[in-house]
Order: sequence, then structure tokens, then C-alpha cells
Amino acid sequence: MIGTPIFPEIRELIEKRNFSALQRLFNDWIPVDLAELISDLPESDQAILFRLLPRDVATETFEYLDFDAQQNLLNALTQKDVTHILNSMSADDRTALLEELPGAVAQELIKLLSFKEFKIAKTLLAYAEGSVGRLMSPDYLSVKQDWNIGQVLEHIRTFGHESETLNVIYAVDDHGKLAGEMVARDLLLSPLDRKVGDIISEDKLITLMATQDQQDALEEFKRYDRVALPVVDSNGYLIGIVTVDDMLDVAEEEETEDIQKFGGIEALEEPYIDVPLLELVKKRGVWLVVLFLSEMLTASAMSYFEGELAKAIVLATFIPLVISSGGNSGSQAATLIIRSLSLGEITIRDWWSVMRRELLSGLLLGGMLGLLGLFRVVLWSMILGQFTKVWLLIGITVGTSLVGIVLWGTITGSMLPLLLKRLGLDPATSSAPFVATLVDVTGIVIYFTVASLVLRGVLL
Amino acid sequence: MIGTPIFPEIRELIEKRNFSALQRLFNDWIPVDLAELISDLPESDQAILFRLLPRDVATETFEYLDFDAQQNLLNALTQKDVTHILNSMSADDRTALLEELPGAVAQELIKLLSFKEFKIAKTLLAYAEGSVGRLMSPDYLSVKQDWNIGQVLEHIRTFGHESETLNVIYAVDDHGKLAGEMVARDLLLSPLDRKVGDIISEDKLITLMATQDQQDALEEFKRYDRVALPVVDSNGYLIGIVTVDDMLDVAEEEETEDIQKFGGIEALEEPYIDVPLLELVKKRGVWLVVLFLSEMLTASAMSYFEGELAKAIVLATFIPLVISSGGNSGSQAATLIIRSLSLGEITIRDWWSVMRRELLSGLLLGGMLGLLGLFRVVLWSMILGQFTKVWLLIGITVGTSLVGIVLWGTITGSMLPLLLKRLGLDPATSSAPFVATLVDVTGIVIYFTVASLVLRGVLL
Repeated sequence: MIGTPIFPEIRELIEKRNFSALQRLFNDWIPVDLAELISDLPESDQAILFRLLPRDVATETFEYLDFDAQQNLLNALTQKDVTHILNSMSADDRTALLEELPGAVAQELIKLLSFKEFKIAKTLLAYAEGSVGRLMSPDYLSVKQDWNIGQVLEHIRTFGHESETLNVIYAVDDHGKLAGEMVARDLLLSPLDRKVGDIISEDKLITLMATQDQQDALEEFKRYDRVALPVVDSNGYLIGIVTVDDMLDVAEEEETEDIQKFGGIEALEEPYIDVPLLELVKKRGVWLVVLFLSEMLTASAMSYFEGELAKAIVLATFIPLVISSGGNSGSQAATLIIRSLSLGEITIRDWWSVMRRELLSGLLLGGMLGLLGLFRVVLWSMILGQFTKVWLLIGITVGTSLVGIVLWGTITGSMLPLLLKRLGLDPATSSAPFVATLVDVTGIVIYFTVASLVLRGVLL
Repeated sequence: MIGTPIFPEIRELIEKRNFSALQRLFNDWIPVDLAELISDLPESDQAILFRLLPRDVATETFEYLDFDAQQNLLNALTQKDVTHILNSMSADDRTALLEELPGAVAQELIKLLSFKEFKIAKTLLAYAEGSVGRLMSPDYLSVKQDWNIGQVLEHIRTFGHESETLNVIYAVDDHGKLAGEMVARDLLLSPLDRKVGDIISEDKLITLMATQDQQDALEEFKRYDRVALPVVDSNGYLIGIVTVDDMLDVAEEEETEDIQKFGGIEALEEPYIDVPLLELVKKRGVWLVVLFLSEMLTASAMSYFEGELAKAIVLATFIPLVISSGGNSGSQAATLIIRSLSLGEITIRDWWSVMRRELLSGLLLGGMLGLLGLFRVVLWSMILGQFTKVWLLIGITVGTSLVGIVLWGTITGSMLPLLLKRLGLDPATSSAPFVATLVDVTGIVIYFTVASLVLRGVLL
């Protein structure tokens, strides 16, 4: 985060190099808050403060730092400290850091890992970006299904300290295949002599695959209200777990991507303020140029009607008003349908009920704006004292074409996402500005067609 | 969900009224899947299937049903069954159901609750919609801080069966004030004679207030990676807990609201397909009319330049092209800034760095489109064999005004959200179509001003 103020006392203590006071102060802080403080410091001070932290707090704090601060510390700390941190970081956070670093740097760091952690890191990095494998943690506890609860509790007390979560314990069969799961509730409420196999039930087990998309995992978490889900390979062997706290971040990332697509931008991979300017311009330029090229058709359409325009200049004055209404109603419809599709509220098969709703909505909305448009034209000419039959006809032209254009915008905006989905494309890319452009072109044709019908023999 | 196919075998078993086969089939199903099946059935069959479920599965299944199915079952089941379900439902899901029902129906149902559940329901319904209180569950376990772990485990074995989560246990002092929390990890890893007071730490406790906005709670969950957070009143007394699974739903709701605001629609309270048509039209109509009324200024601006238009009809043909580019670049900028603000990546104080970025982006993007526009005009006139110096000047007019308009769109789109935020308003309501409309009007003024400068003495 940029511009968060740092408490003046802390700044003063750092300047005075009063380390013991800082150390006392930080004793009560939790890692996430320490991380925020350190991320906000100038790079030169970050390592100074970080070195003051107790060893066990340091690693957890490091996991919460933003990538820039993490990179800076990797350079500023001793190799011994870096080795300790990398080896004790949780594997999913380490994967996220390593994939952010330049390839050569990441390779250097991976060499600092112990053989066990090295194998883990290599495995996780082998999964595609955006896949469940990248979020996966290998730090879970698994027990045999023929153990009893007493043995399980004993096992947890011995090996549980490194596990990412103790809220769920996994049971495997003799071959290491996932057989079921027990939640903390089961462990805490069952008698000590109860067998694991009697508690778990394979039928009710929900699993993820490491190659699945993170978005799928998010859906499963939402659907089944779990705090963790096991990840299995294609043979059903347990290879890791994903915890729900990572899912809130996935949800946020997906939302940002959706919203950016809606706004007609290719999804940015970094925060707005960190994206290099040229990349920002490129991501926006692509869509702007595509829209601009399509919108050129409006100029062609307009020049086709240049004869009419020359005879009735006044028609030109209402063009922005009339066509923008089509664009606006189109973006509204597109927004509603795209979101409904992505929430699973509607599917392609509902196209006819959507069409019916949108036909009616379009007629009502178009009628409303049409009346407003008619009044605007007629009242204006009355106020200016120029009211004639021609002005009434112009009002009727504006009003009638508004009904047609808003209706057309509503239908286009709602049907295009369904059509794209049908073709296997992402409906979110028929984002608002795209629909607006499409409707602009047809809007001009509708407007001049209505005009030539209504005004024939009068102005045209 | 609409249109999900129901397995033909199940349909057949229902038609044949083969209840024992159905019952056997459902034995292996988990509640969330049963709920989806029942929600998809015609209303007349829902109660038939629901009655086949074992009592303990029935309540959990009921919690997962959609509101329509829940209402239908409340009517179709016996009062005895309804009483059982309502009393055994988890309090947060019950609150969600009761707030969805018409007031009179909810009042009737509340009367069916036991005195204890009645008090809970009344309390939860007293909190405002969208507040943490509505999500809160009173089913948590709390222990005294002078107990040891052995006593805690004993307490859990006795009273833990009704608790919503056993992943977190809360410690209170002698007056009932929240003193700290223990996670399953602490319970499972600590020696039995360890005192609760030695494990917990008040400093590191994160709490929610029942009156806080659910969006705030979501931020805390994201920030601190918790599976549950305690809710306290203004005196620090523990009154309930919120679990992370409810947060994924809050995130989804917030996202839908944001996206709908972006698309220029007031947020819908129900799925698109369930909103009554007139309400849908109203929610969309309000914004469409506001945009239409603002866009009327384009007609006023255009008629101000009617003299120029009459002399150079060709100017009119490029108006939609030129002004839509301003609108598109404006919506892009607005989308980026609004999202960045809501993620906390930028704050109002960053306005100057945003302005600098957008000035540069706007110039680059405007330059790109300006060149394209110039080429379009010049090439076209060459292809049509009409190329003259006048066409070159018109090309320069289109190109130059595009630079100005895209730059202006980018600045408006990025600064308006920051300004709205500064005024304490929601930046998301300066959604894309609103910026587009604003830029349309000024775009016309820029276009004709450039035209009158470039074409003075030639066409004008």
C-alpha cells in the first residue's frame, strides 16, 4: 500500500537507532501488522527492522510482506538468514514468491533449500500458474485408517507442529490412497478408542486435482463450506491440501480480472500503480483500437446518409443523444447477463426466458426514453418560439427511434454474452464498451431509417 | 439454479413412488447435493423427497436449499416437522431465511421456536441488514481462562456438539469479557496441565462488532487469514462468532453489487431471473433516465455549433467516432481507478501520481487513435478519389481532437472517482456510462473548437 503513514515514534526510534526500544515495542505486534509496517519503510530501513524480530516471528512476518519488500530483504539479509527463512516458509507462500522473482534469482534461491524442501518447491513450481497445484501445501497430517483416536492424538502431538492446519486430518489406506478426512470436531468429540475407519466416510469426501483451475477450487469451497480441501493425483493419492484463506485471495483476483474485462481492459497482472506505464498503455490500447476501428463504421453509416443530413442539419444534433441511449441500455443488459451467467443463476438454455424479459424491459425503457426525447424536442422548440409541424415530426423521429434503439441495445447486450458462451468464448469479453460500439453503428441506421419514413416529403 | 437436469432414474423413481429405492439411493448423498436436487424438483415433489430424509440430514439439507424451496417446504410440511427444523437450524442460516420471508410469515414461524432459540432469533434480527450481527452465530464454545487444557477438552466433549465450529475456542474472564482465543492447534498440541491463560494472548486478538458492516468483516478475514472471528459488544463481552464460510458468500454479493454499479444499474437484491420485471425496469430506468437527461446537453452543444455544421456537413459524420473514443478511454480509466481504490492499492493522497500516469497514458493513447483517425479520413478520400487539401484539414481536425478528447476522457475517468471518494461518496457510482456521458458533451465542444481553428477560412 502506498502512502500509509508510519507512526512518528517508530520513525524517530529508527533514526536514533534505538533498537532495544523498538524490540520491546514489537514484542506485542502480530506478524501481519509487522509486515505492513516493514513494507511501508524505505528499503534501506527494512532489513534493520526485520533483523530485530525473533526468529520464529521473522519467517511468518516475511510471508506477509509484499513482493518488493521480500526481494529487498533477500538481497539485504545474510545467506544464513535467507536459507533459514526459505526453508521454514510455508510452501504455498514460497511458491508465490519464487514465481514472482526473475528465473535466475529463483534458481539461486531454490539451491539454498534443504533436499526435502527443494523437492517440494520443484514439484509445486511444475504446476501451471493459476492451477490448484500452485496453492497447494504439502504440510498436512495424514493417519492410517486402522488407528484409533488415541493414536491419532499422539501422532498430532508429535508431528503436528509443522502442519499448515490441524482443523482437518486426512486418513489414508495402506497404499497411501486418500480414504477420508476428520475435522477437529471429530477428534475432539470422539472417544479415544474409536477407530479412524469408523469415523470417516469415503462417499462424502470432496477432493481437488492439482491441475484444476483455482477458480474451480473456489467454487468447491463455496459450495461445501470447508476450511481445507485435499488435493489428489489422478490415482487418488493424497499430494497436498489447499486452505480456505487462500481462497479469499483467489476470489479477489478473479473479481479484479472480471471488472477489468468489463471496463474493456485486458486484465492487469499487478496493482495499477505498479504496472509499467507502457504495459498499461498496451493493455488499454489494444481494446481502444479495436473499439475505434469498429466505431469507424459509424462514420461510414453517417456518410451514407449525408444527403438526408444536408437537407436536415437538425437531425445531426440529436445523434449523440439517441445512440448513446442504445449503448447505455446495452451495457446494462450485458452486465446483468454476464454476472448472472458467472454466478450460475442462468445458463444458455434459458436464452428464451432472458429474451422475453429483455424484450419487455427494452420496450418499457425505450418507451420511457422515447417520451422524454419527444418532450425535449417539442418543449425546446416551443421555448425558443419556433414550434412548427416539422418540429413535432422531428420529435416523433427522435422518440420512435429511441424505442427501437433501446430495444435493440437491450437485446444485443443480453444475447451477445449468451452467444459467446455458446461458442465456447468468455462472455465477459463482450464487455460494456464493446456492446456500446456495436449498438452505436446500428443506432445510426435505425435513426436515419425512422427519419426518412417520418420526414419524407417534409424535410427529406 | 435453473435448468439443471435431474437424473432420469430419480425422476422415474419419484413417478413410480418407489420410496424405499430413493431412500437407499440418498443414504450416500451429502446434504448440499440433496439440497440441489430438491431445489430443482417441481414444488409438488419437493416435500415428498424431503420427508424421506433421516431427521439429522433433513435439517442440514434444509439449510442448503434455496429460499423458494425453503418457503415451499415450510408450507408443505407438518407443523411438528417445521418446528423441529427451525429449532435445529444454525442460527445464522435461520436469520437469513426469516429476513427473506414476508413479515407476517416470519412472525408466525418465530413463535414455533423454543424460548432459547426465540431469544436468539429476536436478537439477530434486530441487527441491520448487511451488518455482522446478521451473520453471527451464538453457537460457540467459551471457557474460563484459569482452566487447564484437560478441563477444556472435557468441556468440549460435553458441550461441543452444538458448537458451529470447534476450530476456535474462546476464553473469557470471570465477568464474561473476551480474554483470548485458542485454535484447534493449541488444544491438540498443548500438554493437558497447561493453563488456558498461558496460551492465549489478549494483544493479538482480532474482534468484530455486531454493528459493523459485513464488508469490514471480509477485510479482516482477508487480512488475518482466520477461520472464525469473535463478535463483541461495545463493552468487550463475547456475543457470537462469524465463520469464514459465510465470508465467501459476502465476497460474492459485494462483487455482484460492484459489477452492477459499474454497468450503471442499481444493485439487484435477487438473482436476475427472479427479480420482478417492473423492479428490474425501475432499477435500470433510474440510471438510464439520469444518463439520458445529462446526454441531452450534447444536443444543446451541437445546436450551438449548427452554423458550422451547416457549412461543413462532413464534420457531423465523424462525431460518433470521435466522442465514443473519449467515452471508452474514460470508462477504462474509471474502471482501473475504482478497482484500485477498493483494493487499497491507491488512496486519495496518490492523486498526483495517478494524474501523472494518466496524463502520459492519455497522450499516448490519444496520439495512437489520433493517427488512426487521420489515416482513416485521408485514405478514405484518396480511395474515393476526392482527396483535396480540405480533406487533409478535416483529417487533422479529427486527429487533433481525438488526442484532446482521449486525454480528457482519461483524466476525467481517473479523477472523478478520487473526487467522489474525497467528498465521502461511493466511487463505484461514477461508473463507466456516467463518465462516458460526461465526456460525450465536452467531446463535442472540443471537436468543434478544433474544427473552427483548423478549418477557419477553408470550410467555416
